Amino acid sequence: LDIKALVIIGGDDSNTNACVLAEYYASINSGVQVIGCPKTIDGDLKNEQIETSFGFDTACKVYSELIGNIQRDCNSARKYWHFIKVMGRSASHIALECALQTHPNICIVSEEVEAKGLLLDQIIDDIAAVIAKRAERGLNYGTVIIPEGLIEFIPAMKKLISELNDFLAHNQEEFDLVRRSGKRDYIISKLSHENAEIYASLPESVARQLTLDRDPHGNVQVSLIETEKLLAEMVKNKLNEWKKEGKYNGKFATITHFFGYEGRCAAPSNYDADYCYSLGYTASMLVAAGKTGYMSSVRNTTAPAAEWIAGGIPITMMMNMERRHGEMKPVIQKALVELDGEPFNYFVSQRDKWAVETDYVYPGPIQYFGPTEVCDQPSKTLQLEQKGCIVVQ
Amino acid sequence: LDIKALVIIGGDDSNTNACVLAEYYASINSGVQVIGCPKTIDGDLKNEQIETSFGFDTACKVYSELIGNIQRDCNSARKYWHFIKVMGRSASHIALECALQTHPNICIVSEEVEAKGLLLDQIIDDIAAVIAKRAERGLNYGTVIIPEGLIEFIPAMKKLISELNDFLAHNQEEFDLVRRSGKRDYIISKLSHENAEIYASLPESVARQLTLDRDPHGNVQVSLIETEKLLAEMVKNKLNEWKKEGKYNGKFATITHFFGYEGRCAAPSNYDADYCYSLGYTASMLVAAGKTGYMSSVRNTTAPAAEWIAGGIPITMMMNMERRHGEMKPVIQKALVELDGEPFNYFVSQRDKWAVETDYVYPGPIQYFGPTEVCDQPSKTLQLEQKGCIVVQ
Repeated sequence: LDIKALVIIGGDDSNTNACVLAEYYASINSGVQVIGCPKTIDGDLKNEQIETSFGFDTACKVYSELIGNIQRDCNSARKYWHFIKVMGRSASHIALECALQTHPNICIVSEEVEAKGLLLDQIIDDIAAVIAKRAERGLNYGTVIIPEGLIEFIPAMKKLISELNDFLAHNQEEFDLVRRSGKRDYIISKLSHENAEIYASLPESVARQLTLDRDPHGNVQVSLIETEKLLAEMVKNKLNEWKKEGKYNGKFATITHFFGYEGRCAAPSNYDADYCYSLGYTASMLVAAGKTGYMSSVRNTTAPAAEWIAGGIPITMMMNMERRHGEMKPVIQKALVELDGEPFNYFVSQRDKWAVETDYVYPGPIQYFGPTEVCDQPSKTLQLEQKGCIVVQ
Repeated sequence: LDIKALVIIGGDDSNTNACVLAEYYASINSGVQVIGCPKTIDGDLKNEQIETSFGFDTACKVYSELIGNIQRDCNSARKYWHFIKVMGRSASHIALECALQTHPNICIVSEEVEAKGLLLDQIIDDIAAVIAKRAERGLNYGTVIIPEGLIEFIPAMKKLISELNDFLAHNQEEFDLVRRSGKRDYIISKLSHENAEIYASLPESVARQLTLDRDPHGNVQVSLIETEKLLAEMVKNKLNEWKKEGKYNGKFATITHFFGYEGRCAAPSNYDADYCYSLGYTASMLVAAGKTGYMSSVRNTTAPAAEWIAGGIPITMMMNMERRHGEMKPVIQKALVELDGEPFNYFVSQRDKWAVETDYVYPGPIQYFGPTEVCDQPSKTLQLEQKGCIVVQ
């Protein structure tokens, strides 16, 4: 094919493959160079040399536009709690950035849930507590941002799903013979005591979901679980209990949303367009310089573009050994939200205020032509990471 | 309270009330003037004097931004059919305007469904036919826009819902005693033959929905029916049948969306901001001129603002007699999509092409600061109504 160089654009997996491919081409002396570029809306490909992946800024701005719109409606109608799930397969970067942009009443961060070993019931308690506190002030409305990957970060749910996967892998035929109305009780009777209790506490639709639609490896497809509806329903049940106990006396009606595809292919923000252009230009320079197995790197992007720092980083520098399909392999590690990082710290410093007060921000649609403070701002996450503060516009 | 004048901002109901209130204040010589302003995202308050209601342009542009984004993803991933429901309680103006802006593969217009007396099964057939035709070309992806009010425009569904409402109003207690797994068969056994057949053809979740959640008047809450999921599931079943018959040989996976609250409280488009400002200014002039029972009217808004025509229209001029709660009352009639109007005509002239080709348009986010052809365009609906064509930008 007479290919001189490949530029591979993608997330941690694609760039891991870019690295493997570069090693292979080098080992056979083919002369084909391979350069990677960091692209994923999830924002989980980042490290000291790679500040962010392109797509993250745009997706978060689209979701924040929509969350802001919903919050303005919410604050006007004053009768709904909106449960809003946002995309992001495992890390909560998107949920956190959207929270920093819009100041919702509640935002769940999966990494915190895992670090604290929270049970699903504790998460429900925490949400219900905020709702009850607002109800005392006569505020029977609000917003909850939920990261798509949440379920897999709840240790107890992880155990339940794992036992379910194992059990059904060995007993699928018997399970299929159980009549529909008896399937739930059948599962409960077969699980370990601890998991049976959790399974029994789940709303019917989610309980059923967990036994259906398995992927080719026999695993439940967690992304199909409608976490936003699960939480809304469980919170409702909890508030009903509290009402009977006299601990809550508000009104609770919910509307659920999932924002995913809306933000994946949006027209890019100016930041992403500039960053992406720079990454591409840098990739071409790396090719011209004869490099292979490098990732295009552009840093200091919260400064004016003239001060951005371009370069190339050997992808091997980002590699860690991880178990994949039972074997230890070198892969680029997904960057999760750091619980001692500035973005999360800032969120923690604000969230109690956001919870009870109504401090919504309405970012509006991405702008291209206006003043630079409207059009060209990098993500709040990046501002906090690099400058330790959010520039007040 | 020493109030001199009220300006009432809202849709057909609010302005009907404004008219009644004006008559009342006049009849008691209170001296309080009442002026109305046309506001509803649904776009169904319009007539010869009122070109459009503010909110419609903004909501449609927000939904079109999102539909465009989804279409770009759809055209890139090439593996999903997106079923997208858009708000608009009864008229299909929003769905039609979004279609004119984004060129989806399919857009259903409720008013056409009603005029043709289509059955649900015929709608499913029509959608499946487009999907099959695209599959023949190797295009196993696409977009379907569905107006929120569709169900009530399908004559057969209307009859079914009406019989269900009647039946359950008289037999709710007996129905409650039927065990859950038997409720569906119970309903089927009680309905007239024709309606029983339709009920039996519905997916389980929708069938259940139709017997639950009744409003205070005992009617099913049609807005809670997830029409987008209903259609997606029924189309899937249809395509499976066709596959067995050898009439279809594609892949079919769906993602469903509902866009409503995202567009209701968005930052206004320049058009809506200008139009709204003009309506408000005109309302104040009508008050100053001593008028009451008038609606603020600003026309010729597809022309430059200097040529806009401001005035006031007696609300009684827009009144029709309609049966409400068993009595004939004067009300402002909801404006439905006119099947001989230019917006629908233009859509019909294009839709066969949009169906099989992939002619997506990606309008992007609402802009405020850029060139006028990007920022200040009125809706396609209004352009077609006033000029008979869409200005190519």
